[in-house]
Amino acid sequence: MSDQTEFNKDNYVLIMAGGVGSRFWPKSRNSFPKQFIDILGTGKSLLQLTYERFLKVCLPENIYFLTNESYIGLIVEQIAGVSVNNIIGEPCRRNTAPCVAYAAFKIAALNPNANIVVAPSDHLILKEDVFVGSIKEALVFASENDALLTLGIKPTRPDTGYGYIKYIPSSMEIKKVEQFLEKPNLDKAQQFLASGDYVWNAGIFIWNVQAVLNAFKQSSPSIFAIFEKGKDQYNTVEELDFIAEHYPLCEDISIDYAIMEKADNVFTTPGDFGWSDLGTWASLHEVMDKDSEGNSFSGKSVVLTETKNCLVQLPREKIAVIKGLSNFIIVDDEKVLMIYPKNLEQEIKKVSAEVVEKLGEHYQ
Amino acid sequence: MSDQTEFNKDNYVLIMAGGVGSRFWPKSRNSFPKQFIDILGTGKSLLQLTYERFLKVCLPENIYFLTNESYIGLIVEQIAGVSVNNIIGEPCRRNTAPCVAYAAFKIAALNPNANIVVAPSDHLILKEDVFVGSIKEALVFASENDALLTLGIKPTRPDTGYGYIKYIPSSMEIKKVEQFLEKPNLDKAQQFLASGDYVWNAGIFIWNVQAVLNAFKQSSPSIFAIFEKGKDQYNTVEELDFIAEHYPLCEDISIDYAIMEKADNVFTTPGDFGWSDLGTWASLHEVMDKDSEGNSFSGKSVVLTETKNCLVQLPREKIAVIKGLSNFIIVDDEKVLMIYPKNLEQEIKKVSAEVVEKLGEHYQ
Repeated sequence: MSDQTEFNKDNYVLIMAGGVGSRFWPKSRNSFPKQFIDILGTGKSLLQLTYERFLKVCLPENIYFLTNESYIGLIVEQIAGVSVNNIIGEPCRRNTAPCVAYAAFKIAALNPNANIVVAPSDHLILKEDVFVGSIKEALVFASENDALLTLGIKPTRPDTGYGYIKYIPSSMEIKKVEQFLEKPNLDKAQQFLASGDYVWNAGIFIWNVQAVLNAFKQSSPSIFAIFEKGKDQYNTVEELDFIAEHYPLCEDISIDYAIMEKADNVFTTPGDFGWSDLGTWASLHEVMDKDSEGNSFSGKSVVLTETKNCLVQLPREKIAVIKGLSNFIIVDDEKVLMIYPKNLEQEIKKVSAEVVEKLGEHYQ
Repeated sequence: MSDQTEFNKDNYVLIMAGGVGSRFWPKSRNSFPKQFIDILGTGKSLLQLTYERFLKVCLPENIYFLTNESYIGLIVEQIAGVSVNNIIGEPCRRNTAPCVAYAAFKIAALNPNANIVVAPSDHLILKEDVFVGSIKEALVFASENDALLTLGIKPTRPDTGYGYIKYIPSSMEIKKVEQFLEKPNLDKAQQFLASGDYVWNAGIFIWNVQAVLNAFKQSSPSIFAIFEKGKDQYNTVEELDFIAEHYPLCEDISIDYAIMEKADNVFTTPGDFGWSDLGTWASLHEVMDKDSEGNSFSGKSVVLTETKNCLVQLPREKIAVIKGLSNFIIVDDEKVLMIYPKNLEQEIKKVSAEVVEKLGEHYQ
């Protein structure tokens, strides 16, 4: 762990931990979503890995968790020594813009010079040192400029599942963003990859708290107005009541739509961080260590014979004996055993919904 | 349940519950063998089903369990109200002849007119009423004759996995046995099936206690001599010490070799009882209820798509979602998940031994 005395006390991190992750069913369910699971089989959940990554960036007391109220207990369980003051509960789901605005007002009331990293809790970063270096550089830039930064992932394939960001080429590490682009078709994705001036939008943001409040004021004035009313309540006993009353009034909108795509002071730091959003079983399989036949597994041990390109997810102390399967996702969860062709994983969301309808919420 | 007042108080049942059943790995292990498992998913173990079946034949206090000492606790757990006096523990494994002789001496000391059914605890009988009828008839025959009876299963296919019994055709229900035959090759098995005078040897015996003691005296005098020495100790506080000292001296030999194949007073009652010895996963699959695609399952529920002729064994409250598998055995046990081609199930014994060698006794 880094020497914490080097940390700028103005640096803050907001870890977004409210998602439900239904694409990882049956392992991830509403009551226990992806970020709380040891999905890589490392002994730590994605949330824990994310938290430990940001301990290299700022003081633990400056790391905040944004989550649904029903997951607060899980965060307390998984993050040793976390103060409940650092867990910000949303009373209802309103996408990312309202909760980022709420946290910005709350942190501004504590420290008007705060620089804030906003990051999902359920992404994978393999090249942690490169990532930490970029984040630190971005924090310095954010502290000195009225700028909204978003981390850019250098594309490694013409992926059609991500949004792209086009930046203006320059010799600087940090580039001015020209345009946000929706998920492209394959043709477009191939053009973006070939051009070299496009990065994937990972949803990891860095800004000074005044810059993000300005952005809300300009681009999303109704959300700004709602949270500005509470400026004397943040970090007092009245905060929860204020939020319970006003949060539900917010528009349901993402931070990208609410401010990023409208602002003209957006920058990006392109990098290769070994990043994956772990959005699907196949993307998890892609980043995991694999045996010589292309199989990945989590669990105590597997005995695989004539088995290729399978992903096997087991409870920690369980073993698997498998023969004669190729390209399957095999997930053994407490309540559900799933064996599904990997190339049909987009069906899983529908199948899981059918199971829940037939057998009840217990399996959600 | 039958009216118990009709039962002949001389009728006894010995349920053989000492086997280890390694072919049902990973569900059946040394510490928890097949007879103690709810392998059919009915909510009752094979042992419990066997016990309840024999409650239609004799008084509960006349039902004895023969087992390895280490399984006594499992029997007490599974058979409500059983007296420990009715559980006969073998101090070591010596195959079936010694334990049958021991039980015969013990029961003879209680009731010299006893008629005894000896039956495995881990077989399936679907046509219970036919079975109970044959057993009752055999008990009457045994009480009136110096005869060793063995239940004969009318073969339904040229199975090469069972021993056969050739009987002398007659108009009587109970036939004189001409010869015991070892597991045949396919040609022979087909001849046996075509002839109609052959039945499978199910290892279910019926005899008067004096008849079986006579048979031991004539055909297996060393075993007879060992247990005769204890005739004043059975059913006293000295029995356990006597057995601990003398039982290990017995030859390791099956009841078939020790007496049945040597005796000339052997009879059989051929019948169609919907019997299976449930010796393998495939034989279990054969007798279980199946869906229209030939899949059988135990567990709470399964969602099977493009899946055929699979056997799915799950813990009671678990569900499975499976797509695109044909002819697989899928067993989800507490410690092991196994997915194995059904036509290769003879490999499982070897694979399980390798797993145990690699990962330890925990998985045995």
